[in-house]
Amino acid sequence: MIHSKDIELAQRLADAAGEAIRPFYRADFATDRKADASPVTEADRAAEAAMRAILDAEAPRDGVIGEEYGEKPGTTGRVWVLDPIDGTTSFIAGRPIFGTLIALISEEWPVLGVIDQPIGRERWVGATGRGTTFNGRPVKARLCPEIGDAVLATTSPHLFSDHDAMHFMALAKQCDTRRLIWGGDCYNYALVAQGSVDLVCESGLKLHDFAALVPVVEGAGGHMCDWNGDPLHKGSDGRVVAMGDPARLEDVLEALAQHDH
Amino acid sequence: MIHSKDIELAQRLADAAGEAIRPFYRADFATDRKADASPVTEADRAAEAAMRAILDAEAPRDGVIGEEYGEKPGTTGRVWVLDPIDGTTSFIAGRPIFGTLIALISEEWPVLGVIDQPIGRERWVGATGRGTTFNGRPVKARLCPEIGDAVLATTSPHLFSDHDAMHFMALAKQCDTRRLIWGGDCYNYALVAQGSVDLVCESGLKLHDFAALVPVVEGAGGHMCDWNGDPLHKGSDGRVVAMGDPARLEDVLEALAQHDH
Repeated sequence: MIHSKDIELAQRLADAAGEAIRPFYRADFATDRKADASPVTEADRAAEAAMRAILDAEAPRDGVIGEEYGEKPGTTGRVWVLDPIDGTTSFIAGRPIFGTLIALISEEWPVLGVIDQPIGRERWVGATGRGTTFNGRPVKARLCPEIGDAVLATTSPHLFSDHDAMHFMALAKQCDTRRLIWGGDCYNYALVAQGSVDLVCESGLKLHDFAALVPVVEGAGGHMCDWNGDPLHKGSDGRVVAMGDPARLEDVLEALAQHDH
Repeated sequence: MIHSKDIELAQRLADAAGEAIRPFYRADFATDRKADASPVTEADRAAEAAMRAILDAEAPRDGVIGEEYGEKPGTTGRVWVLDPIDGTTSFIAGRPIFGTLIALISEEWPVLGVIDQPIGRERWVGATGRGTTFNGRPVKARLCPEIGDAVLATTSPHLFSDHDAMHFMALAKQCDTRRLIWGGDCYNYALVAQGSVDLVCESGLKLHDFAALVPVVEGAGGHMCDWNGDPLHKGSDGRVVAMGDPARLEDVLEALAQHDH
């Protein structure tokens, strides 16, 4: 059960992460190119530390898993999963399409998610049993009656293994190939919730990469699962699809399976 | 010779284009998926018409070349080159990394360029003999002493012919392969000027795609040319490289030539 105070806490975490990250955006990376701690690492650490400090004070018995500082066990069955900067490459390049990801998982299932873009000040919040909001206003994923019209997004062709890339390409061929979206990381999933992207397909995601996305996409009426159609949870293998129109599930899974031999 | 009034005029064009475009951003595309005039086409046309109206009134003897409404000959040797929405795919997906491109070419050479991002309200302006500015403040491309450290960007692997893709991959292998940037169109060139991306390499660009980029990148201390190292002008073949550090020119051309057999 998600209480309003959990959502408020998640938003305070996002506020704190944004404050920590903004000074490093488009900072002078040239001088630090070879440094041990690059500005992105510094921003990552500062943002996660700021979030952990709030959790230590306000939810000390919950567990925490963060990309930078690892796992802190809890006693409540609730775990906050933090990815201070998802989309490091975009952050480094100075593109405002990275995000801070904050999830609450309960007994291994994501029940609350925040995707926060601290430069454009865009925030998507989703929670089980509540509609997803964008900067406080409800948003809806869009229908996509024909998979051939689907706008498909993925972060990089280089993030797939050769094997996974074949499955991805089998799916991509079924979609609107003139409108394939490259780059974007978590931002693409926010755009599924926003109703301007139809599908995202990726592999190699870690728990902190996908946990926050699930409540955001599903609270907007979309659907997320692994490449077998199974729900995403703590033990998922990192192969992920998101769709704005859940009615496309069979098309997507069928296309992804086409190279299974 | 670029006068301040040309720069002011270019900025008024960008203002007008932004006003025309913003209402269509993340508008409800679902209902218009099959319509003849999609929201992006409508936005494109509205923005170009707004810019042309200003040019007709204020620079009636200059030529105009626009992506949507073709060529209007002039008598001054000066031609305004307009691309109302460069990065249509990003626009359609709701990503704030498309741009309005405005160039002034004089006797076939780009002498003034504007890259305008109307959602994030980001504007880069460059002109021959003047330093490039970002929202009015000077910006500088960064040095990149080692090509192995270069952050390389390109819009999509699908925009290359098979032959060009091999050349691109030969270059990509020399760069920082962990940080390859996908997607972005004109925005990537703005980030070269901004000093957060080192290289952009693309092919298939049209005059309206690249003319505005050249003064922006070069006014920030960077360099742009075709894949043979020749300067970009009205008749260029659309194979384009941009580099923040002109000292990397030989490395780039050598890498690009590696698959020439």
